[in-house]
Amino acid sequence: MLANIRIVLVQTFHPGNIGQTARAMKTMGLTDLVLVNPRCFPDDEATRLAAGAEDVVDAARVVDSLSDAIGDCVQVVGASARLRSMPLPHYDEPEEMARELVENAATDRVALVFGRERFGLTNDEIQHCSHQVSIPANPDYGILNLSQAVQVLAYEVFRAWRHSPGSDFIQQRPPHDRPPTREQLRHFHDHLSRVMQASGFLTQPHARTEAQLQALFARAQPSRKELSLLRGFLSSVEPEDTES
Amino acid sequence: MLANIRIVLVQTFHPGNIGQTARAMKTMGLTDLVLVNPRCFPDDEATRLAAGAEDVVDAARVVDSLSDAIGDCVQVVGASARLRSMPLPHYDEPEEMARELVENAATDRVALVFGRERFGLTNDEIQHCSHQVSIPANPDYGILNLSQAVQVLAYEVFRAWRHSPGSDFIQQRPPHDRPPTREQLRHFHDHLSRVMQASGFLTQPHARTEAQLQALFARAQPSRKELSLLRGFLSSVEPEDTES
Repeated sequence: MLANIRIVLVQTFHPGNIGQTARAMKTMGLTDLVLVNPRCFPDDEATRLAAGAEDVVDAARVVDSLSDAIGDCVQVVGASARLRSMPLPHYDEPEEMARELVENAATDRVALVFGRERFGLTNDEIQHCSHQVSIPANPDYGILNLSQAVQVLAYEVFRAWRHSPGSDFIQQRPPHDRPPTREQLRHFHDHLSRVMQASGFLTQPHARTEAQLQALFARAQPSRKELSLLRGFLSSVEPEDTES
Repeated sequence: MLANIRIVLVQTFHPGNIGQTARAMKTMGLTDLVLVNPRCFPDDEATRLAAGAEDVVDAARVVDSLSDAIGDCVQVVGASARLRSMPLPHYDEPEEMARELVENAATDRVALVFGRERFGLTNDEIQHCSHQVSIPANPDYGILNLSQAVQVLAYEVFRAWRHSPGSDFIQQRPPHDRPPTREQLRHFHDHLSRVMQASGFLTQPHARTEAQLQALFARAQPSRKELSLLRGFLSSVEPEDTES
């Protein structure tokens, strides 16, 4: 359950990042935000940049220490750009992390912990974590803005949730026009061939050209309406003495 | 090649979003930015929020129309939160979009197009695109901040690139200490059993407990150093008359 997934920000310097984090969370169905010793909070900047996610900001809990933020969690993943020499279990891919986090979140509280903008998490704070994850990035410039790191990992978590057996997420799809029958398609291709011959484009039936066009329209997947449109066009350019 | 992947922003209102977009791009190895009629550019806010990605901002091209931005591209994906009634090919998952985009980018220019903060892309602009993609999100609050949408899609593109056959990306992994041999592990488990019996914790060898502990340490994957550490601890608590 997404409600079991907590986002923890440690000593955030810019209140704007708190607001943008709240927004990033809400777009991905997350609502539980805990702030450990934020420098400036509450703050207008946080509210302003939350842009519709003020409820997440308003409900955010403020605590003194990281242990207070995560004591009730069974899994705590530290998001860290730097790899430490302490070999905490580490996820190479955020996707793997998200899958396990979501699995645990079905029954227990879990947390994703983010550090300071400039300094990340201390080694001490990493020790409060059960796992580490980093976001694979440009080796020459690999540090994401804090709220953007939250957005990426929240996106992966939401994705893992969408794909999990229990979720009720409904994929929005564009409206789907009715496809034609094979017979209707055949009539269209016959019509197309006739016009290509009548116009002189083909001097005789040409199997390869016709196969190519059949493949093209197979990929295009015209709807019934679109097929009508095409046939109407063919009729308009058809030389007058051709049988339709 | 990542260099063939262009990010196009149409009529961006907040110059800060341009800066944050540049940063998001650079973290994911992208450098080609084109701005169609930005409201305010160049601008100090764009430079300030680029935070190390000023080179991407400085190299950004400004054009008057979307066609000027994408004429040389073989694939143009419009990022759109709203699904249109015009049934342009649509990717349900950014992951699928990224895979195809990266594949095309191996040999040709491609583009990802983002619209205005409030209004997205017009239907006209969508028609300049070969595909649409949307980021699956919270149905109740699903509009990501512009630069965060760029970050998510750039992340997926970078991921597709990392996993593609041609890439030379090297996964950073934490340093890997040397694992022990099976014999060393066996000695450790024998030592552990002895201490458990000597201390009275087990009155006799107990197969199930020992199997449980062997499984636990199999999952922990202790390095040689860690095994030494554990054996040192066992020796220190070992009652004096036990044979080591």
